Amino acid sequence: MSDYSKTPRSTLKRAHKRGHYDRQTVHAILDEALVCHVAVATERGVMNIPSSHWRVGDTLYIHGASKGASILALENGAEACIAVSMLDGAVFARSVYAHSVNFRSVMIYARGHSVEGDEKLTAVRAFIEKYAQDRWDQLRPPTANELKATKIIAFEIHEASAKIRSAPPGDEDLEFDVWAGVVPLKLSRQKEEPCLKAGSHHAVPKGLLPNLG
Amino acid sequence: MSDYSKTPRSTLKRAHKRGHYDRQTVHAILDEALVCHVAVATERGVMNIPSSHWRVGDTLYIHGASKGASILALENGAEACIAVSMLDGAVFARSVYAHSVNFRSVMIYARGHSVEGDEKLTAVRAFIEKYAQDRWDQLRPPTANELKATKIIAFEIHEASAKIRSAPPGDEDLEFDVWAGVVPLKLSRQKEEPCLKAGSHHAVPKGLLPNLG
Repeated sequence: MSDYSKTPRSTLKRAHKRGHYDRQTVHAILDEALVCHVAVATERGVMNIPSSHWRVGDTLYIHGASKGASILALENGAEACIAVSMLDGAVFARSVYAHSVNFRSVMIYARGHSVEGDEKLTAVRAFIEKYAQDRWDQLRPPTANELKATKIIAFEIHEASAKIRSAPPGDEDLEFDVWAGVVPLKLSRQKEEPCLKAGSHHAVPKGLLPNLG
Repeated sequence: MSDYSKTPRSTLKRAHKRGHYDRQTVHAILDEALVCHVAVATERGVMNIPSSHWRVGDTLYIHGASKGASILALENGAEACIAVSMLDGAVFARSVYAHSVNFRSVMIYARGHSVEGDEKLTAVRAFIEKYAQDRWDQLRPPTANELKATKIIAFEIHEASAKIRSAPPGDEDLEFDVWAGVVPLKLSRQKEEPCLKAGSHHAVPKGLLPNLG
């Protein structure tokens, strides 16, 4: 798969070895992460909205209440800067400044558009399938009012970069006799909590959160 | 502790029961989370930078390379919208649209300033202590050049809100006979990876990541 466009603002200037521009790396981070942050200039100033996201091909989707200020701005074509980041560890070094974190992140600059009609339902289905495979056909489908109350914004990904740090401490201050190393961190599933209102005779389905690392 | 200012843009308009404005709730989220996203308008457009953050009283700190576009904009007084969010679970409902996530998030609108002199070293120490208690005195201190290469931006928190969802699925479509419930998620420590260059005779210190839930 080819690379995304490297523009001056999407190209890492510091720690440039941490930069990646290939679709495979960018997609893997977007697909594993469950939350993004969408920054956009609105009439209320710059807003930064945490949002679930999902990807189909080179399109990134988010959703939000139709009347929200950030959704309105995005729908009207304001540029977004979308950040997706996963924290993979805390890095403890021997010098104060060599302390760091291991992480994988993606930054996308893009203008979005509102998805309508059949395309909207197809996008909603892809969203559900990021969270649960083989579940769509069992669910009560969206109503017209539900679909109307929520906008889906699609961003075609062109200008994107990934940044990854995955390493032990990088310091050289070995004469400081202190423990150094990495405490890995991972977003982990805990024991499921079945809803007791109904359906608790079902086993927990396989295929929930299939991309969680 | 008193509440933060409720302004039109910091007050939740939808799902307003999820909104919290008291310092205790806001601070607890800021202190447990290790990463924030800082959105700011720069000469390159709106940028959205993932960053480690730390808090002392009503001041939130971030750090970044002195020459970075976002740090320069912040230093020059551009308003930031800082989002901190932790994903606590995926909520599987019986209807498509009742699927949700459990989360805790904070949004802060603030203008920052660069921290200098003795105050800068004090802030760096608080940063280290968020990651590791009782470690500062064992470390090689920052050099003048290290301090110069990195800016610390302080934001006085006035306009802030927290948003929390922590609940089972909220749907009423009980006739759809499918498993429903929550898959809790948690950023969890994994087995430590000591740096083998030196110091591996030390036990892993207690007090690493003391606020991790």
